[in-house]
Amino acid sequence: MSGVTLLDEPFDLDADRLKEECGVFGILGHEDASALTALGLHALQHRGQEAAGIVTFDRDQFRAERHLGLVGDHFSNADTINRLSGRAAIGHVRYSTSGEPVLRNVQPLFAELEGGGIAICHNGHFTNAMTLRKQLIMDGAICQSTSDSEVVLQLLARSREKKIVDRFIDAIRQMEGAYALVALTAKKLIGARDPLGIRPLVLGDLNGAPVLASETCALDIIGATFIREVENGEVIVCTPGGIESFFPFGKRPARPDIFEYVYFSRPDSVLGGRSVYDVRKKFGRELARESTVDADVVVPVPDSGVPAAIGYSQESGIPFELGIIRNHYVGRTFIEPTQAIRTLGVKLKHSANRSQIEGKRVVLVDDSLVRGTTSVKIVQMIREAGAREVHFRLSSPPIKHSDYYGIDTPVREKLLAAKYNLDEMKSYIGADSLAFLSIDGIYRAMGFDGRNNAAPQFTDHCFTGDYPTPLTDLSEDHDMARPPRLVEVQ
Amino acid sequence: MSGVTLLDEPFDLDADRLKEECGVFGILGHEDASALTALGLHALQHRGQEAAGIVTFDRDQFRAERHLGLVGDHFSNADTINRLSGRAAIGHVRYSTSGEPVLRNVQPLFAELEGGGIAICHNGHFTNAMTLRKQLIMDGAICQSTSDSEVVLQLLARSREKKIVDRFIDAIRQMEGAYALVALTAKKLIGARDPLGIRPLVLGDLNGAPVLASETCALDIIGATFIREVENGEVIVCTPGGIESFFPFGKRPARPDIFEYVYFSRPDSVLGGRSVYDVRKKFGRELARESTVDADVVVPVPDSGVPAAIGYSQESGIPFELGIIRNHYVGRTFIEPTQAIRTLGVKLKHSANRSQIEGKRVVLVDDSLVRGTTSVKIVQMIREAGAREVHFRLSSPPIKHSDYYGIDTPVREKLLAAKYNLDEMKSYIGADSLAFLSIDGIYRAMGFDGRNNAAPQFTDHCFTGDYPTPLTDLSEDHDMARPPRLVEVQ
Amino acid sequence: MSGVTLLDEPFDLDADRLKEECGVFGILGHEDASALTALGLHALQHRGQEAAGIVTFDRDQFRAERHLGLVGDHFSNADTINRLSGRAAIGHVRYSTSGEPVLRNVQPLFAELEGGGIAICHNGHFTNAMTLRKQLIMDGAICQSTSDSEVVLQLLARSREKKIVDRFIDAIRQMEGAYALVALTAKKLIGARDPLGIRPLVLGDLNGAPVLASETCALDIIGATFIREVENGEVIVCTPGGIESFFPFGKRPARPDIFEYVYFSRPDSVLGGRSVYDVRKKFGRELARESTVDADVVVPVPDSGVPAAIGYSQESGIPFELGIIRNHYVGRTFIEPTQAIRTLGVKLKHSANRSQIEGKRVVLVDDSLVRGTTSVKIVQMIREAGAREVHFRLSSPPIKHSDYYGIDTPVREKLLAAKYNLDEMKSYIGADSLAFLSIDGIYRAMGFDGRNNAAPQFTDHCFTGDYPTPLTDLSEDHDMARPPRLVEVQ
Amino acid sequence: MSGVTLLDEPFDLDADRLKEECGVFGILGHEDASALTALGLHALQHRGQEAAGIVTFDRDQFRAERHLGLVGDHFSNADTINRLSGRAAIGHVRYSTSGEPVLRNVQPLFAELEGGGIAICHNGHFTNAMTLRKQLIMDGAICQSTSDSEVVLQLLARSREKKIVDRFIDAIRQMEGAYALVALTAKKLIGARDPLGIRPLVLGDLNGAPVLASETCALDIIGATFIREVENGEVIVCTPGGIESFFPFGKRPARPDIFEYVYFSRPDSVLGGRSVYDVRKKFGRELARESTVDADVVVPVPDSGVPAAIGYSQESGIPFELGIIRNHYVGRTFIEPTQAIRTLGVKLKHSANRSQIEGKRVVLVDDSLVRGTTSVKIVQMIREAGAREVHFRLSSPPIKHSDYYGIDTPVREKLLAAKYNLDEMKSYIGADSLAFLSIDGIYRAMGFDGRNNAAPQFTDHCFTGDYPTPLTDLSEDHDMARPPRLVEVQ
Repeated sequence: MSGVTLLDEPFDLDADRLKEECGVFGILGHEDASALTALGLHALQHRGQEAAGIVTFDRDQFRAERHLGLVGDHFSNADTINRLSGRAAIGHVRYSTSGEPVLRNVQPLFAELEGGGIAICHNGHFTNAMTLRKQLIMDGAICQSTSDSEVVLQLLARSREKKIVDRFIDAIRQMEGAYALVALTAKKLIGARDPLGIRPLVLGDLNGAPVLASETCALDIIGATFIREVENGEVIVCTPGGIESFFPFGKRPARPDIFEYVYFSRPDSVLGGRSVYDVRKKFGRELARESTVDADVVVPVPDSGVPAAIGYSQESGIPFELGIIRNHYVGRTFIEPTQAIRTLGVKLKHSANRSQIEGKRVVLVDDSLVRGTTSVKIVQMIREAGAREVHFRLSSPPIKHSDYYGIDTPVREKLLAAKYNLDEMKSYIGADSLAFLSIDGIYRAMGFDGRNNAAPQFTDHCFTGDYPTPLTDLSEDHDMARPPRLVEVQ
Repeated sequence: MSGVTLLDEPFDLDADRLKEECGVFGILGHEDASALTALGLHALQHRGQEAAGIVTFDRDQFRAERHLGLVGDHFSNADTINRLSGRAAIGHVRYSTSGEPVLRNVQPLFAELEGGGIAICHNGHFTNAMTLRKQLIMDGAICQSTSDSEVVLQLLARSREKKIVDRFIDAIRQMEGAYALVALTAKKLIGARDPLGIRPLVLGDLNGAPVLASETCALDIIGATFIREVENGEVIVCTPGGIESFFPFGKRPARPDIFEYVYFSRPDSVLGGRSVYDVRKKFGRELARESTVDADVVVPVPDSGVPAAIGYSQESGIPFELGIIRNHYVGRTFIEPTQAIRTLGVKLKHSANRSQIEGKRVVLVDDSLVRGTTSVKIVQMIREAGAREVHFRLSSPPIKHSDYYGIDTPVREKLLAAKYNLDEMKSYIGADSLAFLSIDGIYRAMGFDGRNNAAPQFTDHCFTGDYPTPLTDLSEDHDMARPPRLVEVQ
Repeated sequence: MSGVTLLDEPFDLDADRLKEECGVFGILGHEDASALTALGLHALQHRGQEAAGIVTFDRDQFRAERHLGLVGDHFSNADTINRLSGRAAIGHVRYSTSGEPVLRNVQPLFAELEGGGIAICHNGHFTNAMTLRKQLIMDGAICQSTSDSEVVLQLLARSREKKIVDRFIDAIRQMEGAYALVALTAKKLIGARDPLGIRPLVLGDLNGAPVLASETCALDIIGATFIREVENGEVIVCTPGGIESFFPFGKRPARPDIFEYVYFSRPDSVLGGRSVYDVRKKFGRELARESTVDADVVVPVPDSGVPAAIGYSQESGIPFELGIIRNHYVGRTFIEPTQAIRTLGVKLKHSANRSQIEGKRVVLVDDSLVRGTTSVKIVQMIREAGAREVHFRLSSPPIKHSDYYGIDTPVREKLLAAKYNLDEMKSYIGADSLAFLSIDGIYRAMGFDGRNNAAPQFTDHCFTGDYPTPLTDLSEDHDMARPPRLVEVQ
Repeated sequence: MSGVTLLDEPFDLDADRLKEECGVFGILGHEDASALTALGLHALQHRGQEAAGIVTFDRDQFRAERHLGLVGDHFSNADTINRLSGRAAIGHVRYSTSGEPVLRNVQPLFAELEGGGIAICHNGHFTNAMTLRKQLIMDGAICQSTSDSEVVLQLLARSREKKIVDRFIDAIRQMEGAYALVALTAKKLIGARDPLGIRPLVLGDLNGAPVLASETCALDIIGATFIREVENGEVIVCTPGGIESFFPFGKRPARPDIFEYVYFSRPDSVLGGRSVYDVRKKFGRELARESTVDADVVVPVPDSGVPAAIGYSQESGIPFELGIIRNHYVGRTFIEPTQAIRTLGVKLKHSANRSQIEGKRVVLVDDSLVRGTTSVKIVQMIREAGAREVHFRLSSPPIKHSDYYGIDTPVREKLLAAKYNLDEMKSYIGADSLAFLSIDGIYRAMGFDGRNNAAPQFTDHCFTGDYPTPLTDLSEDHDMARPPRLVEVQ
């Protein structure tokens, strides 16, 4: 074969998005616990597509299944659901940030402690995990996975406390970072959210059975009622007898991650009392106000740019059109190409809808700009389809800093906005004009006058560099604390 | 498990759409023939997802691969493409209308004739295939597949003509119906379109290599130039020396299928000189003019209802919003569920975006109404999300008649519009109001004053009952001509 | 990797044996028809390991499954057996002699004729199949497979006879060669053996249900009673009402293939009234009488050399020992290696049992010598294990001629005995002495005084060059009659 | 389906044999370390067919692959071998004694310790593993697997010693039982054999590279030279600089397991200076002397009864014949049946060779008798084939006691010889006579005058009840020390 290949996909519009690491779900006291957990995880699939796992507790035994792949591929058949018997379950979807995906890293993780078994999974990242791991290994612990969750388990196992909840609190008191944790013991479903509430976690109810989930869309799919968000720094312990709350870190103001609104959460989820779809439309409206342009058509970068583009269109009065068409039949192969051959712009996942672009001045709306590699290609595609002008608009501020709280960001040097000023970015991308939503604009869209720099309402370090927790691991030498030097193929 | 299941999907919005049977592609004289064919078929995947096949010719041998499943799953790796060597290729994507999918039915089909081998595939349906098959079997022919294409092959094999093109013409002269045929011999790429041009077929060019494809989107993906549509009744013969045309049926006016505009073709394809996306928006605009309603929001039934909904919104001034969110991570399992357990409205593929619906008067726009089973559920979902009123609008006329030209329609008794009048349909679906685009409205959107009943511009029998060809098989007893009485697995 | 590999197996003792092409089985009138057929095929697995197929008839439908691989891998689960419902079944195991294995070649083949469907499979080879195929294609027939059976089907389909049995006889009258055919119609189980009875076929009975099988071991496994052999040239037609016999070729003396005794049939089968195991022991005894040698131990080449070695040991009084040990855990991979890298004598399937060989004079007994490639290695292995002398003994005469009746022999130039005299063979193999059973010796072991050259009792062309039927295809030009010029992967 | 099934195999002659738990292999300083380990494990496959694993060390990383299934199925392709790069490797084949097979139990296990990584695997059983595990969990250790090897790892990780060899010795000093251990660090290949040398381990050399293996047959397959057995209680440490020995338990007489000669080891292995094949023949000769019988034919129960049957035949003068034929084409399915339906004596793996049995007085020779379930069936099969008399002879004494050293024996109540006396056993089995080799007979065959009851030469508790080590776990309550209460499906 000479010049054409099917395998590479240089034009995946999703190739340059930030990736969330995980989603969590738990339910206690329902006869269909595993089926409901599978459904909840399916609704959270956008938070992690690499692997999924479910652990249930049935009478005197925990039951686990963990698979690489989508929830629907492995947890949708009756056999699996029947094997996962029991009236309590927790589950996890995972996106891997590094290394080869291996099954031993798929959560929930499980340990048999002196007082009984416990399964645990989390969304987020512990910023002192490697430091703690190093200490644990020196103390004779054997760490089998490379997952941060295992550090929590090891701390739990070594805690001198007697009760499992006390052990749990003992363990998370030693952890720093951003997390939503869900754990299951023989009698309890436990949830915990980091002291600032950076990662989301909500509490629901299904006919009396308490439900924990990363987002409200996972409650909706099973018909559960939304009760409230788990508070920042709260440890919530569900038993058949009721729900108890602990605040081991005391109470302080929350700082949820603004990026959940920008990109991660599903548009139909409600977060902090706000419809995510509505917030995104408001980002688009605010952007239209800040960066007006004379144009013929507003075209979203599918799919995540759509709500902001609708908002932009409604505010500006410029018609909204689907100028880019998504091919729904992109099989698995294109997601995991087996070899990387260069192609000349073959567009497997998207194509330009020439009739809406040719001869027109196009406002192209996307949610955020990371490395810019995809934006270059999309602007080129729009130009090739005959656009007269291309005005690129981003419904969030420039990303200038890496994340350390469970989001897979490139190293700082690869972030376009960390390298270039606005004009350089415009040239790099090849647009006729380029504009971002301002940092105050994003806070205005959230209902504030602007960012409260003295006590910021949200975690927004990717835009501002203001990290709200210590980053212990970054300042240490972690040669020994690295994940085990074992390359494993199942 | 008691009341919940993952497997069944009663709420697949695509479950009640008409299904196209096939897409075809061919190219002659390019070193990457098989890779380009795989790309072309990928772009045509919406026309058939059950199976795909490619046949190439390399020096003195034909090479074939046929697989159940998506193009991207089987034809995207270098090994397969390399096995399919040669500078000429044809390919096929297939949707099965009946029975178990078996490999022997996957096209292209191949036969070794006295004068050499020929591979053949088609989109469409021959309305006298069973009658001819019966005759062939009585004459001692052995039919291995249940595919109509095999009848063409058998007629070719038995033709007294000497030249392959004459044999081809001899064969299709005996066939009735609607079809776009693509064939490959050692030296020629042949295309043919039925006398009325019911099924689409276009001719393109890639650096001198002629390309045949069901739609222009398959030209776009490989960067080929659109030359022209193959004309109705035309047999087009491509050789390295050039292109020849034959009109074995004489010349007469075309009557292309209006349903290609309504639903089948991809929105970015251009058909009969019209952008499919544009036509659909015009259907929506025309619909808005015909059936105004006082409402707060226009919500499309994703994804095929989107262009008409945008048109409706633009014409009516009512805001367009994504009131239904699609889950992009529906794995294979949900496409082919292994068991059918009833569920209570678990929505795996779609969810209501409550923030855009609650308390609002909603205009719900879909492209067509078949059995109505899905429409019932979607109206219910919108109501459950809090809509104050639900006005259901269809951007095509009521479907009252079955198709016999390659589209998988239910038997007439299952078509909602064949059973009920408008008011009964409204009640059945549970909408506050219901309206269809009129038959003249659809012709107006196409640029005419209305339907020319004396000489209709399009094939529109699903709406009108006006079948443009004989339906020979329908009037015969075909017990013996039935597909072989063999149930085969693998 | 430098010098060692797992993949290649230069020391497969079975690599240089002749291969049978097929085994057949059929049963009529038993509720477990498909399960019994699967068992029968499993017992015949030694006759073909590449693929297996079963066709049943259930009320008004034939049901088929055909798979590449072993019977036990595909036909041992309840699902498959249940899909193959019906009270009549035929089945086939196949060893491929040429080309890539493709499913369309796996038997039984099926055709829908004017009078109803028929499935057919055979063991053997038609020596005028290509000549007939050429004629059929010129007459407009489409041949889908490269299997000889399809020629029979095509002749059946074109026969002017009305009754299916007459059509069947009409067809086989046109065929030359060696075969055991089994066919199934809606009402009949049909068997046929070539005019000379070269290929074997037996008739059994299971509680009133007639059974046809290549060997008696297939009757034993299902507990069926052996009735008689199907006679040479006999067409046997089983219906619920009874069994009818036809002799379309008249009656003449049989000449069964002597190689069934030498190597192909299972030792526990009874053929022509003789225990195969017993015959092989007699070959060994005769060989001991003809070729005495002063030695310490008789070692069989496992497993097919064992009975002859026991006979040799009993006749000569030299102790029998397992000097070569077989590894039973050779997985599939080693049967179908994915690449052929040279190795340094790594013995995956066999190893020398040094304690029985070191310092001893060894008589090594094998059943036959084909190309000699394995014999070289085995003699070397025995020497490396410390043998003082190695005397190689073959319990059949030198193979000097190729087979054209369904046995996969190398071209004549590759047959060691066709190239070399005895002394040259001894040197090539590296033995201290070499001896074959004489042609008269083999007839003596069968109970005759010797070969009746005027009217040979057996088909023995591999030893004598005396082919008992015309070899029409060999004398014609078959360019057009070749298998279709289609290379197909699934 | 009514009365016949393919799936169940009540007549597997190997169904009632004792099962070894494992085989181990290691090599240091060879560029083809992983390929050679795969070959070695293939030669040891008879010691465990459930799973296999290999760990290599390459520069700064360990590399691991572990698979359920046969060595040849997963470790015979170039990709796998290439991934397992490095000049040092250890490997393991495993037979599971309890529970569902799960990947986390497949050895070698790996841990990252303070001083670096270590991989470890073993054959055998630690009789105080559960007691130690309980203590470890109370101390906060997390045990991920149910493998005894993990206890060794945990003890290693918690050792206060600095050097890895000292940690290793520290760990095994706390362990009781029977074992052959192989471990790999970045710089060392370590082997260890239990204080009594119950489980076997040999040292070989391949062009200067030290090799450790359970049996000599694993040296033979790669062409390595046998150096010596690892001594009982020896820790052997191989580095590029040479080999060091430690005897942490002091020196005392060895008591290797007699069952390695009776059944486990491969016949071509040499153990304790004796050919296993020769020893088995001597068991047969001794048995013939102890239990003469007037008979016509000696028939082995294949395959393990063959050497003893040959010995019996040679001593008694009664002819040896293959009265039972093994079907070599029993696919994987029959090894792991998916459901257990009763059958009516369908014999998938073996068949009677009637010609050698009918009308004869048969001496049937097998190596040992466990539950007797298979023996009942085999005697019945021989009788059904027409035997006049059946005399059952076992070439080992009655098994009256369970094993706790790594052999999978039924609970004592299921052992036929623990329940019944000789006469009752004869009746149960249905033989005309029954005889076992005596306990002194087995010692005579080994070259002694008889068993030295004061200081037994071998471990023979299955026959005598004389367990040579403490059985600590048996006398404790291990509720908490049980394997984690987690049922996991990969």
